[in-house]
Amino acid sequence: MPTKRSVKDEARELRLYEDVAERVEGLIVDGTLRPGDRIPSVRGLHRKWSVSVSTVLEAYRRLEDRGLVEARPKSGYYVRAAPRLLPDEPESSNPPKRARRIRGSMAYRLMAEVTKPDLVKLGAAMPHPDLLPLKALDRLLAAAMRDEPASSHGYMVDSGYPPLRKEIARRMVDAGCTLAPEGVVVTNGAQEAVYLALRALTRPGDTVVVESPAYYGLLETLEVLELKALAARTHPREGVDLDALEEILASTDVAAVALVTNFSNPLGSVMPDAKKRALARLLDDYEVPLVEDDIYGELPYEGPRPTAVKAFDRGDRVVYCSSFSKTISPGVRIGWCAPGRYLERIAHLKLVTNTSSPSAPQLAIARFLSGGAYDRHLRRLRATYRDNVGRMTALIASTFPVGTRATRPAGGHLLWIEMPRGVDSMRLYESAARQKISIAPGPMFSANGRYVNCMRLNAGLPWSPRLEDAIGTLGRLAHRQL
Amino acid sequence: MPTKRSVKDEARELRLYEDVAERVEGLIVDGTLRPGDRIPSVRGLHRKWSVSVSTVLEAYRRLEDRGLVEARPKSGYYVRAAPRLLPDEPESSNPPKRARRIRGSMAYRLMAEVTKPDLVKLGAAMPHPDLLPLKALDRLLAAAMRDEPASSHGYMVDSGYPPLRKEIARRMVDAGCTLAPEGVVVTNGAQEAVYLALRALTRPGDTVVVESPAYYGLLETLEVLELKALAARTHPREGVDLDALEEILASTDVAAVALVTNFSNPLGSVMPDAKKRALARLLDDYEVPLVEDDIYGELPYEGPRPTAVKAFDRGDRVVYCSSFSKTISPGVRIGWCAPGRYLERIAHLKLVTNTSSPSAPQLAIARFLSGGAYDRHLRRLRATYRDNVGRMTALIASTFPVGTRATRPAGGHLLWIEMPRGVDSMRLYESAARQKISIAPGPMFSANGRYVNCMRLNAGLPWSPRLEDAIGTLGRLAHRQL
Repeated sequence: MPTKRSVKDEARELRLYEDVAERVEGLIVDGTLRPGDRIPSVRGLHRKWSVSVSTVLEAYRRLEDRGLVEARPKSGYYVRAAPRLLPDEPESSNPPKRARRIRGSMAYRLMAEVTKPDLVKLGAAMPHPDLLPLKALDRLLAAAMRDEPASSHGYMVDSGYPPLRKEIARRMVDAGCTLAPEGVVVTNGAQEAVYLALRALTRPGDTVVVESPAYYGLLETLEVLELKALAARTHPREGVDLDALEEILASTDVAAVALVTNFSNPLGSVMPDAKKRALARLLDDYEVPLVEDDIYGELPYEGPRPTAVKAFDRGDRVVYCSSFSKTISPGVRIGWCAPGRYLERIAHLKLVTNTSSPSAPQLAIARFLSGGAYDRHLRRLRATYRDNVGRMTALIASTFPVGTRATRPAGGHLLWIEMPRGVDSMRLYESAARQKISIAPGPMFSANGRYVNCMRLNAGLPWSPRLEDAIGTLGRLAHRQL
Repeated sequence: MPTKRSVKDEARELRLYEDVAERVEGLIVDGTLRPGDRIPSVRGLHRKWSVSVSTVLEAYRRLEDRGLVEARPKSGYYVRAAPRLLPDEPESSNPPKRARRIRGSMAYRLMAEVTKPDLVKLGAAMPHPDLLPLKALDRLLAAAMRDEPASSHGYMVDSGYPPLRKEIARRMVDAGCTLAPEGVVVTNGAQEAVYLALRALTRPGDTVVVESPAYYGLLETLEVLELKALAARTHPREGVDLDALEEILASTDVAAVALVTNFSNPLGSVMPDAKKRALARLLDDYEVPLVEDDIYGELPYEGPRPTAVKAFDRGDRVVYCSSFSKTISPGVRIGWCAPGRYLERIAHLKLVTNTSSPSAPQLAIARFLSGGAYDRHLRRLRATYRDNVGRMTALIASTFPVGTRATRPAGGHLLWIEMPRGVDSMRLYESAARQKISIAPGPMFSANGRYVNCMRLNAGLPWSPRLEDAIGTLGRLAHRQL
């Protein structure tokens, strides 16, 4: 089985690069190697540690990306005179304790930009097509349409293509969830899953608890459903604060809680398992449903994918939502939800909203998942996202105004940047647009117009000099506002 | 330009068959040829009227399909001893004059059946894949994904792919509408278009005027939006009665009117132009918007496609909805609406509901429309639907209980059958299902459980002995209930 071997080899190599890089980084951090020192030559390390030349080269490239060493032509690698430090992380948010109706967010305008070809797209959370497995997908689409024309072009009713629902249920085991395929409803992306969930769980005027900052697509959904958003204090690494949440649940009539639980949008936070378990129990105590958006859950930089809150959901109140938009193709519009006790209502809403999701992509994705190609692709994608986030963070540290903070996500492809007070991200958005760069300004992520000095950046782009320049440009534009 | 010539030839031939068939039919109707008479031999007519042998043969085949003549082996064609008469048409409906909340329709169950492979699918209004231009579409999809991967796999925001919106606007000229491409919002089928329109135009508890019988997908939409349906008297050929409608508008607070204006579902009615103009004026007078579902508008059996009410819409209050599900592929999920003055709200609702419709199909369909292939395909499809409806009507006349009525649609692929009182279409549905035949029972099309003795049949299937048998079986099952 040559495929399996090469997969293993690939994984081993990735670990090797990282091992070598980390050992050298250790020498810098503990002071063995000091600023200006030449680090061991590539050939020297190759002999001494018995690793290949290409592995050492790749490890050094990574250290360079992280701003720890620099290459000097014809001389070798040196510890940077002033090693770029990682920016501080933002602190927990402290949103106002009142529910707000959402009005007139600007997601519309931001989304319209994704089709512009000549833009550096740091705004929308859309992976660049070069990072997606489009050739493989297109082949599978063609094969599905050829082999099964009736299924590929008929209505895919009954909540979706059964083999796809089975593959999804199977994958959910990795998130700690035991699902029957019949418990999965295929939707047009996670956005539709979240929309249908909130349609099913709320009535106009109801209050929904959200993170702060929160994904603007969620805030827009609350807007059109005429719901009030109540933002809870949120930690940049561990997500929503459970004490704050319990205080809200104890004092307010809440229709639902809606969170991105893993590698959240925009913070990149991941709730630890113990917290997920406690959250599930808390929601059970108060009999409040959770809309769990886990669209980034399969994108950890290291180790296995994190669990879902749904894994701890004894009360069956979690509507788990996800999609293949961040990993396979946004354009095929295939997502899903696992609605638990709300299955029948959400399946009916789906049928009435648009009969069914596109058919041929369901066949193609089912085949992509079952063959193992998806897992191989995910491995590459995670490494790319991790490297990009690392490089972008290093560049931000060296080009943005002092005092700029940045999240340190452990997965996904989003960075949340908190610039010094005095920088207005809406003005930055405008001036960046004139330089053909898009960003997602902070106030989009707030029900209360907060986060004026913040922005979200998309790292789901192939690394390029133009992208590096764009980060530098953003830094200069931010400087200019102070 | 060989393509254009062959299109012309094809159209000329179609007219020729029909001319010959009509002239012979005239001889039967005016008594020149009487039951039992041998009609002119194929070769005789070929010489006498200077038409090809194959044209005469095709014309006689059509007369046979219509039940007017029968072939006797080695002898020729004879006027049938008891020519099958067309069944009478149903009369105008007379629904109760009160608004009703919709609850628990059975569309769910019916739709679930469309994926069953071994069923004669006379139930759902889904065209059989053999009648759709799937090979051409699949080629265009592959080409789009190969040539424009970024567009084919990115979010198609900003209300849809601009070249598709342009093609749609261009085609709408044939329906009498002058639209800017920017006035078109691409949706996931007409179902989503109608759903978004009603979401935008109503609030829970509002009243919406519908036809009687009305499309069950519309009634389901009213159900989930918690709207009341008020059914208006409807004529089987000319659609909703404007006097009845005016009476309703004058006495009731109506949030919207929702109609299928051409080759309606289920009646097949087409509003004459004068009536469309009067309807537009009436709605303007009362300032009530119209959700116009024109999904069958491009499927007339003869002549140009009928106009839309939107053509007469001076007040810009018509939300025109349609899709390619009945003509190209239901599975690609591409429909659209032209929301007039409600454009901004509906475009925003679309964005929030599921970001955008599938991308690659928008590129493929835009190419299919611009090349002329769509028009050539439509010509064939209309002929097939017309022939099927003719054959099914003839079979119903000869196999169903006396007193059975049937609509005489001038387009589309649906037949509405009114059986004698005493036949319960829900029981018929159950007994037909045991014979692997699906139908759409009458009560699905009513907010009040009416039309118990009615059903809708889908003629969008390739003609086959099995299909003929299925109609015969339905007739026998109906007989058995009396």
